[in-house]
Amino acid sequence: MNAAPTLDDVRRAHLRIAPYIHRTPVLTSEMLNRETGARLFFKCENFQKAGAFKSRGACNAVFSLSDVEARNGVATHSSGNHAAALARAARLRGIAAHIVMPNNSPKPKQQAVAGYGGQIVLCEPTLAARERTCQMLIDATGATLIHPYNDNRIIAGQGTAALELLTDVSGPLDALVVCLGGGGLLAGCATAAKAIQPSIRVFGIEPERGNDWVLSRKAGHPVTIPPPDTIADGLRTPRPGNVTFPIVQHLVEDVITVTEDEIAETTLFLLERMKILAEPSGAVAAAAVLFRKLPPGIRSAGVVISGGNVDWDTLASLSPAFTR
Amino acid sequence: MNAAPTLDDVRRAHLRIAPYIHRTPVLTSEMLNRETGARLFFKCENFQKAGAFKSRGACNAVFSLSDVEARNGVATHSSGNHAAALARAARLRGIAAHIVMPNNSPKPKQQAVAGYGGQIVLCEPTLAARERTCQMLIDATGATLIHPYNDNRIIAGQGTAALELLTDVSGPLDALVVCLGGGGLLAGCATAAKAIQPSIRVFGIEPERGNDWVLSRKAGHPVTIPPPDTIADGLRTPRPGNVTFPIVQHLVEDVITVTEDEIAETTLFLLERMKILAEPSGAVAAAAVLFRKLPPGIRSAGVVISGGNVDWDTLASLSPAFTR
Repeated sequence: MNAAPTLDDVRRAHLRIAPYIHRTPVLTSEMLNRETGARLFFKCENFQKAGAFKSRGACNAVFSLSDVEARNGVATHSSGNHAAALARAARLRGIAAHIVMPNNSPKPKQQAVAGYGGQIVLCEPTLAARERTCQMLIDATGATLIHPYNDNRIIAGQGTAALELLTDVSGPLDALVVCLGGGGLLAGCATAAKAIQPSIRVFGIEPERGNDWVLSRKAGHPVTIPPPDTIADGLRTPRPGNVTFPIVQHLVEDVITVTEDEIAETTLFLLERMKILAEPSGAVAAAAVLFRKLPPGIRSAGVVISGGNVDWDTLASLSPAFTR
Repeated sequence: MNAAPTLDDVRRAHLRIAPYIHRTPVLTSEMLNRETGARLFFKCENFQKAGAFKSRGACNAVFSLSDVEARNGVATHSSGNHAAALARAARLRGIAAHIVMPNNSPKPKQQAVAGYGGQIVLCEPTLAARERTCQMLIDATGATLIHPYNDNRIIAGQGTAALELLTDVSGPLDALVVCLGGGGLLAGCATAAKAIQPSIRVFGIEPERGNDWVLSRKAGHPVTIPPPDTIADGLRTPRPGNVTFPIVQHLVEDVITVTEDEIAETTLFLLERMKILAEPSGAVAAAAVLFRKLPPGIRSAGVVISGGNVDWDTLASLSPAFTR
């Protein structure tokens, strides 16, 4: 296995993907700062191309391939956002994208993949079925696997979100707060942030109902939980990645959980007060801040809003106002 | 009456208000560019302090006052966003704000005014009642009237939105598209934009159900229509301002209307596709672009999203998905 990515890898990724991604804005809210007693900087990856940070890693991976590697296209399995981002990146490079998706992934995410020209194969919503189906596709097509998180090119690409955030915020931050599914975003962001500012405290946030990282950190190695039943559909991965786990162990101070209610309330709060649409997974890091789950004494924090791909039914289900 | 504001006035306003407002981001959407065949730049004043561009003009007016003028506070009548912005600006300066609001203005807008310490007096939802009640308040308190649009300080303040937009977009734009209620935002933005880039074509957009500007331009002078019944509650002003009308006549190429359905669909589109929450009034300028109401040949446009203060009930009423 290659060594873990470095800040240099993240910087190179940023140069490589700059033509294909948004430099997303960093938003602040006077009211939220007052309510939480901290200066908060929200990195809005819900405004990213294809609606999530996943475009960063996918573009870095696809545009890292040699022409020979790229020839037979790329393949992956993903609950949705990585799938759409990879299909988009493949189209930008003019190659095929074979996408294995769990059959319970939201319709808009499937439509997005199809809209970018990705070739979808549905499978049962288990990690084993996803990996098996993907391997069959690769054997049949010769496509290159672009794993959603267990891939240094992906990790370096996702880290560009933190690189931009720390560049665009003036002055050091006490903390960086990032959601945690497979761990690609957190591993990449922690790599960039700790190298740029070693004093920064990095926290990973996951749904209480998908607490595989908390359990794995206790065990000291990745453990598998049953398929998590959480509204944060982007974070339903049942096991930390083998590549991301040691990076997170090394760089991340703590992994903290939030409840389903906290995720739902935060999604609505971001919409009503900050006027931005985050998907439930995208609100998970913010939920930890709003519900004061971080250790005391943090006076400033960067918070990644990871994505905004949510359908009306999901949104409606979050609010009593919608279900009368 | 003073001469119309100039680009210099807008620049001075920008320096004056910079500590009190957000430099709001300019968002773009690859997909929208593809669908409309134009490069579109959305100036997101829904992320502005107090949720709308009105904070620009209100801060400029309040911080323009001499200490003697400021002593007895400020007063205004407003359907909501100017009211909240003025209350906020007054609190920042440490003076009183007396606010006359129509009794049909949305609850969150009334709550926002109260939250900023504004003193609310409700009145009938007619322009005559608003003006009469406001004059009574001024007579009683000695407060200075800060009119929501018929005021050069307000117009210059609102123009800072266009100043930022044209600074942050690289290269010239074919057009600038702005919604039209009393005309303060359009007059200010047109003043700044035409002085910075004389070739730019400026368009004002109003609801078909509140077409006082279209009728007034035909008549050659401001005419009054019955209180407009439109979901764009920020644009229910029934008559162009006396101060804003000649500026708009001079600088704006055309005033174009959009239907209620077009406004509703655009509000939902901005939410679903661009992940931003605009109030219906805030979506009016974008509606003209999405529904191809502009003249042909426009290849690039700045579009102001004017505000984001919308309650759940209004949002729910826009979408069949919410009303099952």
